[in-house]
Amino acid sequence: MVHIISKKTVSFIGAKLAAHIDEQLFTKYGFKVEQLMELAGLAAAQAIAAHYPKSNVAVLCGPGNNGGDGFVCARHLQQFGFNPSIIYPKESRNELMKSLVIQCETSNIPVNTTLPSDLKPFPLIVDALFGFSFKPPTRDPFTQILKTVRESGIHVFSIDIPSGWDVEKGAESDDVIHPHAVISLTLPKMCMKNWTGPHFLGGRFIPRGLVDEHQLQMPEYPGFEQIVKIED
Amino acid sequence: MVHIISKKTVSFIGAKLAAHIDEQLFTKYGFKVEQLMELAGLAAAQAIAAHYPKSNVAVLCGPGNNGGDGFVCARHLQQFGFNPSIIYPKESRNELMKSLVIQCETSNIPVNTTLPSDLKPFPLIVDALFGFSFKPPTRDPFTQILKTVRESGIHVFSIDIPSGWDVEKGAESDDVIHPHAVISLTLPKMCMKNWTGPHFLGGRFIPRGLVDEHQLQMPEYPGFEQIVKIED
Repeated sequence: MVHIISKKTVSFIGAKLAAHIDEQLFTKYGFKVEQLMELAGLAAAQAIAAHYPKSNVAVLCGPGNNGGDGFVCARHLQQFGFNPSIIYPKESRNELMKSLVIQCETSNIPVNTTLPSDLKPFPLIVDALFGFSFKPPTRDPFTQILKTVRESGIHVFSIDIPSGWDVEKGAESDDVIHPHAVISLTLPKMCMKNWTGPHFLGGRFIPRGLVDEHQLQMPEYPGFEQIVKIED
Repeated sequence: MVHIISKKTVSFIGAKLAAHIDEQLFTKYGFKVEQLMELAGLAAAQAIAAHYPKSNVAVLCGPGNNGGDGFVCARHLQQFGFNPSIIYPKESRNELMKSLVIQCETSNIPVNTTLPSDLKPFPLIVDALFGFSFKPPTRDPFTQILKTVRESGIHVFSIDIPSGWDVEKGAESDDVIHPHAVISLTLPKMCMKNWTGPHFLGGRFIPRGLVDEHQLQMPEYPGFEQIVKIED
């Protein structure tokens, strides 16, 4: 159902390049965060719907753009027949994040600040806590949340970067998420180089100019698809 | 490739309800125009890629949100391997529309104010001039553009409403676009009730609350798809 590409056919990018691409998209290329976040969250939801059966799903959202992707993902998951609940431990003052909360709440997607005391009703957790700009170590309340999630043994699907990982070096301590599956956005980051679990790629919006400037190896998406799966 | 649903399984909505749904999405439900425009434009591009071979395509964009959908559609069409050019006769002062122009121009999608004197290099025209809030008659420069497009005999794909049509009564004069195919957004409008040509539907983002409030018959999208095709 999802087209498979080889790991050898795409660039794995470092922290500096990821930040540069992000910055250029919103300056030189004139994109709005809302636009690309919508595509990122949609791609994440599509990968989840391709990989897991419909279920309750707890979506952990951080205060930054990775968390925003999580909110958007939750909205689309609901459209796809999943039953999402959002855990949003640290509220952002950002106007877009406030809108995302309203969108979810008015769509009957609960938004809570703490993990439910019993995680058993959730066969799946989506990790949208930290993205590529995160620098370890984690702090509370996140350290505690990661620990609880880790100890629950529940399948975790991470958006872009498994939370707690360094974008280049990966997991540098045990104080991180050990996901079951990951979707990389735009291009996989260095920390995913040795990853052998299920690995999706989405974010089909990089302009040709950026591709050429950095000689990026972009994935070959078939037809009008928004996600592919990366294998060896 | 695209899932087919029966016309009998979806609501056809009038001008008042279409306007009300639109208004509620951006107030009560907290959506940003950028978000829904991205999904609408993506769905339009997906329908085009599902229905036509890759080619040069002239995308006619009006100054309102229907035109914005056209800009987004053009960007995604380029990602899908089409070669879009935008015709944007009446520049909007709207800040989002300005960003959409920048996004296309920096992606090497030409943005011009007039139709090319020779339309032959374009086997396909996307009509994103007017949406559901348009009231006939058209005015110049649009009257002349519609005439040129009509006389060219080139296949036209309309986004949401064929330009010049009344949202409920359809074509009330000859001074309109006669499309080859149409994508309706969120739900088809009354003017599409007797349409027998290729008919796609996209815009999978209506919250349950709005569906229930108006007892809307929403399309059954399969899996994580963003478009379906409507047949008798």
